[in-house]
Amino acid sequence: MLVTRCVQNLTAYTPGEQPKAKDVVKLNTNENPYPPSPKCAEALTSFDLDRLRRYPDPEFTELRKSIAKMVRAKAENIFIGNGSDEVLALCAKAFVENDEAIGSLDPSYSLYKTLAAIRDVEWRGFGDLGEVEGAAAAKLALFLLTNPNAPTGVLKPRAEVAAFAKRFKGVVVVDEAYADFARENCMALATGEKNRNVIVMRTFSKSFSLAGLRVGYCVGPKALIDALYKVKDSYNVDAIAQATALAAVKDAKWMRGNVKKVVATRKRFVAELKKRGWDVMPSEANFVFARPAHAKAADVFERLRGRHIYVRYFSGPKTADRLRVTIGTDEQMAKLLAALDEFDK
Amino acid sequence: MLVTRCVQNLTAYTPGEQPKAKDVVKLNTNENPYPPSPKCAEALTSFDLDRLRRYPDPEFTELRKSIAKMVRAKAENIFIGNGSDEVLALCAKAFVENDEAIGSLDPSYSLYKTLAAIRDVEWRGFGDLGEVEGAAAAKLALFLLTNPNAPTGVLKPRAEVAAFAKRFKGVVVVDEAYADFARENCMALATGEKNRNVIVMRTFSKSFSLAGLRVGYCVGPKALIDALYKVKDSYNVDAIAQATALAAVKDAKWMRGNVKKVVATRKRFVAELKKRGWDVMPSEANFVFARPAHAKAADVFERLRGRHIYVRYFSGPKTADRLRVTIGTDEQMAKLLAALDEFDK
Repeated sequence: MLVTRCVQNLTAYTPGEQPKAKDVVKLNTNENPYPPSPKCAEALTSFDLDRLRRYPDPEFTELRKSIAKMVRAKAENIFIGNGSDEVLALCAKAFVENDEAIGSLDPSYSLYKTLAAIRDVEWRGFGDLGEVEGAAAAKLALFLLTNPNAPTGVLKPRAEVAAFAKRFKGVVVVDEAYADFARENCMALATGEKNRNVIVMRTFSKSFSLAGLRVGYCVGPKALIDALYKVKDSYNVDAIAQATALAAVKDAKWMRGNVKKVVATRKRFVAELKKRGWDVMPSEANFVFARPAHAKAADVFERLRGRHIYVRYFSGPKTADRLRVTIGTDEQMAKLLAALDEFDK
Repeated sequence: MLVTRCVQNLTAYTPGEQPKAKDVVKLNTNENPYPPSPKCAEALTSFDLDRLRRYPDPEFTELRKSIAKMVRAKAENIFIGNGSDEVLALCAKAFVENDEAIGSLDPSYSLYKTLAAIRDVEWRGFGDLGEVEGAAAAKLALFLLTNPNAPTGVLKPRAEVAAFAKRFKGVVVVDEAYADFARENCMALATGEKNRNVIVMRTFSKSFSLAGLRVGYCVGPKALIDALYKVKDSYNVDAIAQATALAAVKDAKWMRGNVKKVVATRKRFVAELKKRGWDVMPSEANFVFARPAHAKAADVFERLRGRHIYVRYFSGPKTADRLRVTIGTDEQMAKLLAALDEFDK
């Protein structure tokens, strides 16, 4: 066979549906409902096309410096990838031997399991961090901890993550894709001088409204960051993405304004769901994970889809009774609530 | 140790120098001296920033169709990556078991060796395709064949590649980064109905003048292409790169105009070098690999560098007596020749 056994047996990760129609209410992939900074548009329209003739800066020097300033780290502690996806795949390569394993909470970001399968190593899921010990933890070289978690939206306090990282022997990647929407984060663990094994990962996809751009980064001890540089493709972040992300960082105030709006809408939306008898997990992200009061989650999902309102449904024992709903604009949430009310009539 | 043994022992690939100064003659990384199509500029300035809020099309549907038309293949036979670099890394993942090996010609694109090291499998170099047989070939699951070859510029006729692929049991990736500058190419081997193991890879970096954009693609049998889709990051080509590459494909005539100019300059430049007693390998690419008449290649490299004229020098027994010089504009080549003449005074 020309294709490896591992890849033959692999079930590819299924990203959330990207409907082509324009008049849909799209609350299924945690995208930001507000546009990126106008400075990004300026970066695009003023981009000197002649720069594309040349290879991009393989070390993204300017963007790295700018991110370092934003997160109060040194540039040497920053790595940037073609989306967090690439950063994750490189971590699996750099920190996990062929006979070791990758761990994460379960439920969590479902890509992690696929990532382990692509890396051809074992994946282990844990109900909570307290279960990561003894024989179950022995083979783990990498723990991928989404915080706030997805699809639940629940935030682990920094102190708990710190305690976990201290007793975990491998590398802990705290995937903070949603941290800008939360009341606290773990960046201080990654930038601390004594840190040996914590990497905090962020993305421009959610809070910065730049999912289409594919820029993610991580912050951690130099020895680990250097390892990621060694295994990356030579020019993994293109010149336009570097320039556009740089503009976004320099106008982080704009991002924080959008975040504020999303968080306010989340609060209102959670109250509305609860009013309708839904069980909503306490969310610190730009989505909520909620159980319908009377109907089956799968049915509600299908009925909403029939009205071009897209939310996310995850089958599986730990997730099938709930829907993950991205926080959109107030108008989008009102449309969703109106549809739910009609179903209940 | 937190970092895998493989990565600890790894020597990272060194891409060609990207000098930051503007007034240099840059002939060291095979970039195109002419700008990309003005349609690319239009694609950029007219790009709807709001699209960046959303994830890009994970299957690059439009770009794939457009490339399929250009190379006369079906869309299902096309895979697109974040530069050819990513396509190569995914091939190493999808087609090579942990105990198998990757082969290539030696000398060839020096990244291949690093790629095998990152994949943690053996790499074997061959002086010519005829040597790929018996015990030396037994473990090879993947052969990476740059054609025209780099750094030599020499083209293998399609018939020879076809014969090799027929007797080779693994996957043959014909890396045609420079094929647009050559008199023939191997695309027909990849699109042929009976093809089982040939993948032809192309890039937008060279002939299309889009090195900064990071878009590469490959064409091959559906079973192999499907395997690459399974192991790629979910959204590996960003929305702007998809739109800009699409504009470039639709204006392929512009690219062919630039290629014509480069090929004409190459012809004149080769004649000039030969006039000065240099030994020039017959090039079908946008660079030449040539041995100075009187001086050591390393010395000429350093002296040129001192004048801000950058060419590429590869140490090592098979390459150290020559320089690889990218074909730039006639003006750039004239500056280089003038410098050489001065050194000889």
